Amino acid sequence: MSALSFELLKTSSDSLARRGRIRTLHATIETPVFMPVGTQATVKTLSPEELMDIGAHIILSNTYHLHLRPGEDVIQGAGGLHKFMNWPRAILTDSGGFQVFSLSTLRKISEEGVEFRSHISGEKRFLSPERSIQVQNALGADIIMAFDECPPYPADREYVLASLLRTTRWAKRSLVAHERSEEQALFGIVQGGMEIDLRRQAAEELVELDFPGYAIGGLSVGEPKPLMNEVLEHTTPFLPQNKPRYLMGVGAPDDLFEGVMRGVDMFDCVLPTRIARNGTVFTASGKLVVRNAANAKDYAPLDEKCDCYVCKNYSRAYIRHLLKAEETFGIRLTSYHNVYFLVKLMEKIRASIENGTFLALRKQFYDAYGYNRDAMC
Amino acid sequence: MSALSFELLKTSSDSLARRGRIRTLHATIETPVFMPVGTQATVKTLSPEELMDIGAHIILSNTYHLHLRPGEDVIQGAGGLHKFMNWPRAILTDSGGFQVFSLSTLRKISEEGVEFRSHISGEKRFLSPERSIQVQNALGADIIMAFDECPPYPADREYVLASLLRTTRWAKRSLVAHERSEEQALFGIVQGGMEIDLRRQAAEELVELDFPGYAIGGLSVGEPKPLMNEVLEHTTPFLPQNKPRYLMGVGAPDDLFEGVMRGVDMFDCVLPTRIARNGTVFTASGKLVVRNAANAKDYAPLDEKCDCYVCKNYSRAYIRHLLKAEETFGIRLTSYHNVYFLVKLMEKIRASIENGTFLALRKQFYDAYGYNRDAMC
Repeated sequence: MSALSFELLKTSSDSLARRGRIRTLHATIETPVFMPVGTQATVKTLSPEELMDIGAHIILSNTYHLHLRPGEDVIQGAGGLHKFMNWPRAILTDSGGFQVFSLSTLRKISEEGVEFRSHISGEKRFLSPERSIQVQNALGADIIMAFDECPPYPADREYVLASLLRTTRWAKRSLVAHERSEEQALFGIVQGGMEIDLRRQAAEELVELDFPGYAIGGLSVGEPKPLMNEVLEHTTPFLPQNKPRYLMGVGAPDDLFEGVMRGVDMFDCVLPTRIARNGTVFTASGKLVVRNAANAKDYAPLDEKCDCYVCKNYSRAYIRHLLKAEETFGIRLTSYHNVYFLVKLMEKIRASIENGTFLALRKQFYDAYGYNRDAMC
Repeated sequence: MSALSFELLKTSSDSLARRGRIRTLHATIETPVFMPVGTQATVKTLSPEELMDIGAHIILSNTYHLHLRPGEDVIQGAGGLHKFMNWPRAILTDSGGFQVFSLSTLRKISEEGVEFRSHISGEKRFLSPERSIQVQNALGADIIMAFDECPPYPADREYVLASLLRTTRWAKRSLVAHERSEEQALFGIVQGGMEIDLRRQAAEELVELDFPGYAIGGLSVGEPKPLMNEVLEHTTPFLPQNKPRYLMGVGAPDDLFEGVMRGVDMFDCVLPTRIARNGTVFTASGKLVVRNAANAKDYAPLDEKCDCYVCKNYSRAYIRHLLKAEETFGIRLTSYHNVYFLVKLMEKIRASIENGTFLALRKQFYDAYGYNRDAMC
């Protein structure tokens, strides 16, 4: 048995939206899917039981963070990440590449890999394709990522090309290094910056390598949303129909619609838990800053149209009080609601693809929520 | 119907330990009972459902804090504290007296009441027996407290006497001010510092006023534990057998045994959630500092003898990781475990009183846990 299977259940006639199903060792995942992010082996403030109640079947965790703290040996000693964090469903780990470039300092990139300083201890560390895969093999996630280089935005075309060629070489080394291909599916990552022809080149080179799935990296790194969408629609057509496609680090509500429309199956983003910590929540009619004084005596739920645990039991007034009083239960409630909002939005999107009403749902959602109101993720 | 009934189910032949049952509008509470503290309308990090799972039937909340933020008008607008915080079982609110003396600055005490500055905004505020009861009537807890003055430790006998006489006068004014005696039971508070004869005097004066229950205040304020226990055993004998007795702000494991042995029925303390935030947990063999490096690869549960949600599902290694990484889920887990530990300890104590084995349980517990190891609460 292979570590992952993908079934394409339905395609659309009026867009590239697809309805699929991924099976891994730990879960069956209906796609398109939003994956909540558990950077440090916990989706901030939430329990595994809450994530299951919400309807999450796969979560993401970060190789870079777990490698630095607590270290993959600690997690391996517990019997792997699933057991360590008490999460029985699927997990995806990234390669650490993105964080090495965005979080650490004093990077030295060579063909061999990247030397960097830990953002926690300041110690010198080294990640390479082999090392990243070794760490990910120890963590034991259902889906793991090839080690890649993510160019900044903006970047010179020459730099992007060199980086993409290196990413392809690193993808090959990642494949060779992978020792648990029966249990863990290794995805390749398409880079290429904002250069449309380089995105095609990257996709075609990776497809040659026959990964069980493909990620699209290097988007939502500061570029305008229309540019992200343009690059995206010039990337997915070069990926195989019969493999899942994962748009990394993207997951504002409008991004989910735009990505699905362009043929993406998987998304992840820290946005729902991050804005929750700042006291902001998603609602059917746009974002709401619960912390605002206007909510002091507002006894309505966060979102009148939501049927989540939080909206059934708590008022804006109570949640605002908790946030103002710096009570962590307030952030638990806003985090729960926001993750629920995106997971349920994906459920609605899946149903709309099945019914052939995806574009209608998109229009209806934007009419109520507004388009492009979210910060980049 | 009165707001509270108390049934004395069993007394002990070898100590003052008693097994009882309190009924309020929202709950039936088996005593002796430990009440988790929800200072700001939330038991830090925990949901109401978790508290119910743990087996809590009554929690405490603080008038001083809720009066300052969000203000009792906000809570009254929600339909009272139970609805505001989604807690269907019983609530006890203190009077604010203790916090006015311990948290606020620039206090001016007069016969009328106490002028103080808010520890949050610095604003001048005023609390008096009438104002405290008015706030507590608006909050709507099942059990409310008379407004009292809590002398510091140490304090002159003259000061303690004057303060106690004022507290008795304030108790009378609290009774007169109370407008919801059909729904809320008002307890008097016995003060008297460490002066044994004044404790008796205070108790006798309050008993004259025929409160439905009596609190013992002004203990665990810095005095040595043997002194606290001595004062306690010279106080409870002057309180009526047929009314509940509540030892305020006390709740380390050994304090529970010592209080029960001296005839106390109710306890509250922030200790379990406070030490949880510092990464320390109760176990059958004493306190454990989970944050310590020794636990980095310890895959045992927090307490091998505990059957709580946390101990069934998570290791010391995982919880230590969360605490080191400053993930609030770590504090959720230590808080859950610690509150469970005290609530279950009380269950065992109640069973031992029923079986006539309370003193044997006390000895057994101390042999494993150690006596007086806990910081004052």
